[in-house]
Amino acid sequence: MRAGQAPIELSIIANTGDDLELHGLSVSPDLDTLLYTLAGLANEQTGWGVRDETWSSAAMLARLGAPTWFQLGDRDLGLNLWRTARLREGQRLTDVTAGLVAAMGVAARLLPATDSAVRTELLTEDGWLEFQEYFVHRHHAVPVTALRYRGAETAEPTAEVLEAIATADLLLIAPSNPFLSIGTILAVPGITDALRSAPARVVAVSPIVGGVALRGPADRLFETLGGSSSALGVARHYQRYAPGLVDALVIDTQDADAATSIAALDLEVMVTGTVMRDHADREQLAGTLLEHWLPGHATG
Amino acid sequence: MRAGQAPIELSIIANTGDDLELHGLSVSPDLDTLLYTLAGLANEQTGWGVRDETWSSAAMLARLGAPTWFQLGDRDLGLNLWRTARLREGQRLTDVTAGLVAAMGVAARLLPATDSAVRTELLTEDGWLEFQEYFVHRHHAVPVTALRYRGAETAEPTAEVLEAIATADLLLIAPSNPFLSIGTILAVPGITDALRSAPARVVAVSPIVGGVALRGPADRLFETLGGSSSALGVARHYQRYAPGLVDALVIDTQDADAATSIAALDLEVMVTGTVMRDHADREQLAGTLLEHWLPGHATG
Repeated sequence: MRAGQAPIELSIIANTGDDLELHGLSVSPDLDTLLYTLAGLANEQTGWGVRDETWSSAAMLARLGAPTWFQLGDRDLGLNLWRTARLREGQRLTDVTAGLVAAMGVAARLLPATDSAVRTELLTEDGWLEFQEYFVHRHHAVPVTALRYRGAETAEPTAEVLEAIATADLLLIAPSNPFLSIGTILAVPGITDALRSAPARVVAVSPIVGGVALRGPADRLFETLGGSSSALGVARHYQRYAPGLVDALVIDTQDADAATSIAALDLEVMVTGTVMRDHADREQLAGTLLEHWLPGHATG
Repeated sequence: MRAGQAPIELSIIANTGDDLELHGLSVSPDLDTLLYTLAGLANEQTGWGVRDETWSSAAMLARLGAPTWFQLGDRDLGLNLWRTARLREGQRLTDVTAGLVAAMGVAARLLPATDSAVRTELLTEDGWLEFQEYFVHRHHAVPVTALRYRGAETAEPTAEVLEAIATADLLLIAPSNPFLSIGTILAVPGITDALRSAPARVVAVSPIVGGVALRGPADRLFETLGGSSSALGVARHYQRYAPGLVDALVIDTQDADAATSIAALDLEVMVTGTVMRDHADREQLAGTLLEHWLPGHATG
C-alpha cells in the first residue's frame, strides 16, 4: 500500500497448504475462496464455493463412483480445470492465479505464499491426515496431536511475496487459524524473516473471540497442541512461534480484559469489534485498522 | 453373439479417431455418444451429449478465456474428468470404458478399436486439421482433399476387439462415415484382416441414402476424395478400400435401383428402410438385420 490519499493497493498472501488433488485436478480452496469473495461471486451461505452453483458434474462423478466428500460445483470445477491445465503447461501457480484474478476483474493481488507444494498434515488417532481429509471428510472432529507442513523445508517464497512484504505500508495477519493457514504460510522458509525485517508494522487479528474460534478448529487445536484458546493464548502463540514477528494484536471487545496481559508480552493491543458476519462487518474492521495504522488512506 | 434363443450379446467396436484433448481432459466423443445412447441418457435433440445437461462449468471456462467451440456440458465434463483421471493412473482406455459401461448399467460391451492414440486428420486449404477442428469448429464446411489416420501405423487392436470379431455370429458395419469413423477403425493394423478371416458374415449398412449423407459430410467427402455419393459408391468404396471385407450391403428402399449394380460387385444386397429418426426406427432396422442374418435371435 502506498502513502497518501491513493486508493489502497491490496496484496493478499494466501495459504496453499490446504490444496488437494481431486479427480485429477489441482484444487486450491483458500485461493479460490479469496478469489470468489473478491470477485463478488462467493457463496455467502456456505462460506465456500461459488454462488448460483449447479452440481451436475458432481452427480455424474458420484454415479461413476468417484469420492464425493469434497464437493466441487460445476462453476468451481470449470475454474479448477482451467487452473490445472495451465499448471500442466508449466505455468507457476502465482501466474495462473494472476490470470484468474485478471479474468475475474479483481483489483487486489492474490499471491500464493509459494509455488512449491506445501501440504498441511495433521496427526490423529488414524495417523497423518491430509488437510482436507481432516477438515472436510472428518469435519475437523478428530483430536489433533501434531502438525507438519510437508514440503515446507524445501519450499521457497515467490519473488512476488517477498516484494509485497518488503514494500508494504502495513502488514496484516488475518484472523485465520494460527496453526493451519497462518502456520503454513510462516513455515515457508524466508517468509518469517521477511516479515521481521519489513519496514511496515505487522498487525495480527485474533481468531479467538470469547475463548472460541468463530470458524474451524483453532480452539480445539490450542487444547491438544498446547496453549490456551483465548486472545492471550493467540498472543503467546505468536510470540513463542515467531518471537518479535508480530508488533500488534487486534482483539475483540469481548476480550478487552486480556489487553494488559497481552501488552506485557511486548505487543501493542487494539480492542475493537472483530466479529465479521457479513461484508459490511468486514469493511468496517478493515476501515478501523487502516484508520489506526495508516490514517488518511481511502478504504474503498 | 451366441447362437440359439439366447438374448443378443452386443459388442460395439468404436472409433477413437475423433478423440481430442480439451481443457486438459481426454475426450472421446464417439465412445460417449454410444455410451449415453445405450444408457438412455443421450440428448436426442442435439445428437451428442447428455440430456438434462447444464452448462455452468462451460460458462466459467468461457469467462476465463478457454476455447468454447467444443461444448462440454457439466455432466459430460464429470464423465470426461473421471476417464482422464483413470487414464492418468495408467488404465487402458478399454478398461476405463468398461468401467463407464458398468457404472451406467449398460449390458452391451463397448470396445475402443485400439488403446493406442489414433487421430483422424483432414487436409484442407488451411492445412491438416484435427478431426474436431474440422468437424465442430469449421462445421465440416471446408473441402477435404486428403485424409490421414495419425498414429495408425503403430497402433494395435486390443485383444478384446480381436476376440469379439473372431467369436461373433454376425459382424455389422454401422452406417457411419466410411472415410472417417469406419475408415479410422479399419486403419488399425490387424482389424481388416481379422474381419476378413472371421467366420461371421460382414454386413455394412450404407450411410448414403438417395445420394446424400443423412448426417455429417460423407457425401461431400466422396466428391473431393473420389468416388460417388450413392449406395453404389459406398459399395465400390468398400470393395476398393478393403476388397472382400464386406459380404453384404444394406441399402435404403430409395436406392433399390442400385441393387443389381451392387450385386455385380460380388456383394449380397438387402433393400430395406434404413433411415433412423428415433429409437423405434433403430430397433426396427436392427430387428430386420438380425431376422435376416441370424433368424430366431431375440432382439430386445
